[in-house]
Amino acid sequence: MNNKIKDFYRNKKIIITGGLGFIGSNLAIALVDLGAIVTLIDSMIPEYGGNLYNIKGIENKVNLNYSDVRDEHSMNFLVRGSDLMFNLAGQVSHIDSMKDPYTDLEINTRSQLSILEACRKHNPDIKIVFASTRQIYGKPEYLPVDEKHPLRPTDVNGINKMAGEWYHVLYNNIYHIKTVCLRMTNTYGPRLLMKHNKQGFIGWFVRQIIEGKEIRIFGDGKQLRDLNYIDDVAEALLVAGYDDFLNGKIFNLGNSPPISLEEIVKILIKKNGSGSYCLVPFPEENKKIDIGDYYASYTAFKNVTGWEPKITYEEGLQRMLFYYKENWKYYWEE
Amino acid sequence: MNNKIKDFYRNKKIIITGGLGFIGSNLAIALVDLGAIVTLIDSMIPEYGGNLYNIKGIENKVNLNYSDVRDEHSMNFLVRGSDLMFNLAGQVSHIDSMKDPYTDLEINTRSQLSILEACRKHNPDIKIVFASTRQIYGKPEYLPVDEKHPLRPTDVNGINKMAGEWYHVLYNNIYHIKTVCLRMTNTYGPRLLMKHNKQGFIGWFVRQIIEGKEIRIFGDGKQLRDLNYIDDVAEALLVAGYDDFLNGKIFNLGNSPPISLEEIVKILIKKNGSGSYCLVPFPEENKKIDIGDYYASYTAFKNVTGWEPKITYEEGLQRMLFYYKENWKYYWEE
Repeated sequence: MNNKIKDFYRNKKIIITGGLGFIGSNLAIALVDLGAIVTLIDSMIPEYGGNLYNIKGIENKVNLNYSDVRDEHSMNFLVRGSDLMFNLAGQVSHIDSMKDPYTDLEINTRSQLSILEACRKHNPDIKIVFASTRQIYGKPEYLPVDEKHPLRPTDVNGINKMAGEWYHVLYNNIYHIKTVCLRMTNTYGPRLLMKHNKQGFIGWFVRQIIEGKEIRIFGDGKQLRDLNYIDDVAEALLVAGYDDFLNGKIFNLGNSPPISLEEIVKILIKKNGSGSYCLVPFPEENKKIDIGDYYASYTAFKNVTGWEPKITYEEGLQRMLFYYKENWKYYWEE
Repeated sequence: MNNKIKDFYRNKKIIITGGLGFIGSNLAIALVDLGAIVTLIDSMIPEYGGNLYNIKGIENKVNLNYSDVRDEHSMNFLVRGSDLMFNLAGQVSHIDSMKDPYTDLEINTRSQLSILEACRKHNPDIKIVFASTRQIYGKPEYLPVDEKHPLRPTDVNGINKMAGEWYHVLYNNIYHIKTVCLRMTNTYGPRLLMKHNKQGFIGWFVRQIIEGKEIRIFGDGKQLRDLNYIDDVAEALLVAGYDDFLNGKIFNLGNSPPISLEEIVKILIKKNGSGSYCLVPFPEENKKIDIGDYYASYTAFKNVTGWEPKITYEEGLQRMLFYYKENWKYYWEE
């Protein structure tokens, strides 16, 4: 990240929704380091990723505001006076979105609308970077998946996130609220929620390894994914926040080459020095929503910003494993 | 429409959401004629299209149920025991969706979810035909627009309808609730709402002609559209309801060749025997959401069902004009 971007954030007033979650807290640490004035908004819903331990070390250098993005009144007030918002709050569990589609709709769709309405009315000059997701592509028709790939979400979560993303594009185009959407792939690293397995497979693999349990991979383990280490994602967010040329646009994040689930597990076992895994057939419920291989083209974002992932899978997984070996007790109960 | 399809509807229990509206009432008339047992659900929201006069002649041959698709309890009850639902209720005004995005979200998105949840829990064997819209394509990248065209809605209404449509696809794929989505283009004909100009241009043109006012066309009048006469659309809905091969799929309706706004007005003036029009610049607010030319490819639907529009623009516009010359006082106040 060049110095122009680093300087840009000094003394900037930033709000981060989902600020105590995985991506929000890592981003906050980076922003505090750059001298930004950071306010974290988090609802602390127990099953979600908000965790006070995530901001250990910067807890006295950020403003903490506990509130829910569904709370229009507090959002109307909170958006005032900020230069940028990193809009990361979301319900991310596929399973929860199917069991309780209304809550997912409230958080991932309706709240996005009310955040944008709050900005339109009370801070139209704000810039928003929105965390979208690869989920909205559904099962890839071709690989790597670029931004032209049709959107065919395979769960309620994907549909609701798709609508939430498009509100951001719309408010940029119609009301000139500056917005950028980044469609994230699997992000991994320290501060990821680990208390249940509803937020992706990597955290769960790491936890199983640390707990000395056998890792179960659904299917043949050959499914390909691209992973982004959290520091690379935080940098992408910072770049997107800085660059007004990106406004109104949607970009994939991603990584190359992709890696299979089995390879990920093998790296974790190697870095850990021990561990085991087995392949188990897809449960019926998961088979319906299995998307096969997925990896994204991030060429569009790279071409306009120069961003690309720097941390290798080996390095990233080692760092993540090390973090949770040290800090696991702040993330799950024995 | 072949006899197999006609026979299929005899004694079938059908519910139509938005049943007193433009498309719903015309469909109800066709269904009553085929011997179906029809229940019309309508909220009678004053600004929307529900109008008791629309079912004049069949009022004693249908069940009328006044309720709002946002009312989960009544929907939970109403879906029971029906063979098919034509799910046509919606907020269709672009302007209203921008002024009050939450109501649009409630009706076009949340209610669709709750209708599908009602069916999943209380009538999983029902078949649903959902009225989607060309709005969700946004400004065409190429013409004619086929179903592979990217979805880039340019207003809140389009985003919310997009999500509502995808819930239908999802519930077909995951829960095996049989659903078909038809993305409709401009539908016109008798029983269209005429009390304001927020539901498309054709109704408004017809009203101006009848009232002896000068028609105002935004832009140069050369914008191309494809129009479907209501009887053709009702037939498409009946075909979609019959054919289980279509389940889980999305199809465009459309017409060929397209016609310009100016040509439409000229036909109306000719059929009326008098009238005038002028070209006026796009108001600033409309310019932002102007999509230029639009016309759809309906080849996919034609290839699997044989459906194609039968009523010419000349014939359809004449019928529409004639209907409102006779019945205008049931549609607007002097």
